Amino acid sequence: MQSVRIAGVGSTAFGVYPERTGRDLFAEAARVAIADSGVPRTDIDRLCYGNFVGTIAEQQGHQGPLMAAAAGVNIPATRYESACASGGVALRSGVEAVQTGTADVVLVGGMERMTNLSTDRATAGLAMAADDLYESRAGVTFPGAYALMARAYIDEFGGTREDLAAVAVKNHDHALDNDYAQFQREISVADVVDAPIVADPLGLYDACPLTDGASAVVLVSDRYAERHDVNTPIAITGSGQGTDTLALQDRSSLVRTPATERAASDAYADAGITPNAVDLLEVHDCFTIAEVLALEGLGLYDTGTALTAAAEGDTTSDGELPVNLSGGLKAKGHPVGATGVSQVVELSKLLRGDHANSDAVDDASVAVAHNAGGTVASAVVHVLEASR
Amino acid sequence: MQSVRIAGVGSTAFGVYPERTGRDLFAEAARVAIADSGVPRTDIDRLCYGNFVGTIAEQQGHQGPLMAAAAGVNIPATRYESACASGGVALRSGVEAVQTGTADVVLVGGMERMTNLSTDRATAGLAMAADDLYESRAGVTFPGAYALMARAYIDEFGGTREDLAAVAVKNHDHALDNDYAQFQREISVADVVDAPIVADPLGLYDACPLTDGASAVVLVSDRYAERHDVNTPIAITGSGQGTDTLALQDRSSLVRTPATERAASDAYADAGITPNAVDLLEVHDCFTIAEVLALEGLGLYDTGTALTAAAEGDTTSDGELPVNLSGGLKAKGHPVGATGVSQVVELSKLLRGDHANSDAVDDASVAVAHNAGGTVASAVVHVLEASR
Repeated sequence: MQSVRIAGVGSTAFGVYPERTGRDLFAEAARVAIADSGVPRTDIDRLCYGNFVGTIAEQQGHQGPLMAAAAGVNIPATRYESACASGGVALRSGVEAVQTGTADVVLVGGMERMTNLSTDRATAGLAMAADDLYESRAGVTFPGAYALMARAYIDEFGGTREDLAAVAVKNHDHALDNDYAQFQREISVADVVDAPIVADPLGLYDACPLTDGASAVVLVSDRYAERHDVNTPIAITGSGQGTDTLALQDRSSLVRTPATERAASDAYADAGITPNAVDLLEVHDCFTIAEVLALEGLGLYDTGTALTAAAEGDTTSDGELPVNLSGGLKAKGHPVGATGVSQVVELSKLLRGDHANSDAVDDASVAVAHNAGGTVASAVVHVLEASR
Repeated sequence: MQSVRIAGVGSTAFGVYPERTGRDLFAEAARVAIADSGVPRTDIDRLCYGNFVGTIAEQQGHQGPLMAAAAGVNIPATRYESACASGGVALRSGVEAVQTGTADVVLVGGMERMTNLSTDRATAGLAMAADDLYESRAGVTFPGAYALMARAYIDEFGGTREDLAAVAVKNHDHALDNDYAQFQREISVADVVDAPIVADPLGLYDACPLTDGASAVVLVSDRYAERHDVNTPIAITGSGQGTDTLALQDRSSLVRTPATERAASDAYADAGITPNAVDLLEVHDCFTIAEVLALEGLGLYDTGTALTAAAEGDTTSDGELPVNLSGGLKAKGHPVGATGVSQVVELSKLLRGDHANSDAVDDASVAVAHNAGGTVASAVVHVLEASR
């Protein structure tokens, strides 16, 4: 088994780019990641690429070969799609290829254009992550689905809209100095609570925005890094994936996410760690409640306790367990296919010490990335470790 | 490195199913494949699944978890998309997982519903496999793109519409006894040549149809087969993937398919064979010219000679090198995401001796499956070998 090292990372700033194409965004992220790695383009063995709604946003399927060309490489290239976990499953495939020795150098990336869609079309596009027959056609949108989960959580364990708001306030605060974030703007609990309700109890500021952007990482094997003297301070030591039913109605509980539990359990076992070892995380906070469920599914908080912990400041940059120091999906933005890759870009920079928020975690060595699709019908977890 | 064995195969009959959902089609194919394998559902480690236009045909993305549930398994499940090679890349990922020991039992499958789309929407959906900026918006459809390739081929190497027609006539002939084929109907060279022109020189019968259907295979490792006494007469001994630019205009030649050449070269090297060893093939004949280009890219005919060989009957069931004994995409049908998996279903049955056309290849032991996406911007090749 080869050790999987992160040789380079790159992202576009996340935001609104009506004038840029998907291939243009990905070309930038890949160029930065490849330059950061110092690995010659010609050494790259394959491209694992995540994208969700490109067929709707740009009438463009078959983006694997297209993005390989945009990155300036002529190599086997495949698109992976697991809704909002598309980037995460692409990453997992690249990690497996390096772990098993199938490839020595893998370019992993993701891209999404969302803001060129009208809100109606974006909502319809995102709804394709849910069960068309039993959810979407019945009028369930994603804010609606997560609102059901939030309502069930508060019914079962208590908590308030203010507690949920703490998650969004924290993530906006974390993004203040992150130039790659879509929103570098402070918000207050009152802003969140007073915002228009989207699907009760979730308001506008409980939800992540529509975002354009791309991210990429260059993974190399241990043997490659040694032979070519490539600087790889961060390793991906664990990877796991879990699956659940698409439709909420088919699940036994709305307040647990077994797909995350399975992905985390496999990733921790792969890395040989327990949740206690984790110093910081990027988790999939498409809605405030999603961050709460993620932290419980990942085994970092007991079921029913993560909302209170968030409200008490545990997960802020100066709390015990900083979560989403990038700003998360909420403030950094959520270009769907890029998100799972972007989490690893941000964690790498945080662990390497060249992130705006690195000071908050200067003793950290173990980080976890958690990317989810749909209402966590797909979940992918990766463990990153710094050698410092 | 584990040997990859085919434990079971299954398909729906290919055809037109307005009354069936995608999950229903896939459930049937998976059920048949799992039953054929004798492997308990609970032993399956992951699902690798191919689909192309589900977001258009059924407003359904995120089909990995959906199809895992349809197959009755709760396991990590990922959708792969490389246009018409979606099934092939899903298969390749499953093969790699077993080869490397990452998984012992993988369910690989693919599904597509095409016939519920109007011809206009299906054409627009398929066009998403091409370059939206530089081809689709300029009016290039897939029949148009392949017509350019056919015209270039005939200009450079000679040949006639009658020669191309021989490919379609042969594939219809092969499908006559295949109950899984969409068309079990003889056609003549005159039928092909007299059919309405779609894009000169290609007519209606040079093109494969729109099709609904699903296919699945159960792959197991050698160690699993031995421990569980699973009957696995066929092995997948080689796998390769190649990529090219999406847009034809970016290529140096319209009559060569470097993605197929790369995929074949890697698959043969993996299997330790040369093209001479190949006894029969299923290749991606979305248009008659595509079969010709495939056979040359696979190294079975020199460039510029496969069209003549087809016209002379080399590739018929009683020729030297039977090609598309299933009926191919032309007559068996082309439910896009299923096609790359279906080729392996058909070849397995042919090699096992339980296919309607097995008699034509009763001495055969080495078979090749070739699945292509777009105008061969993606190609995937697998080598199957029978132990007989």
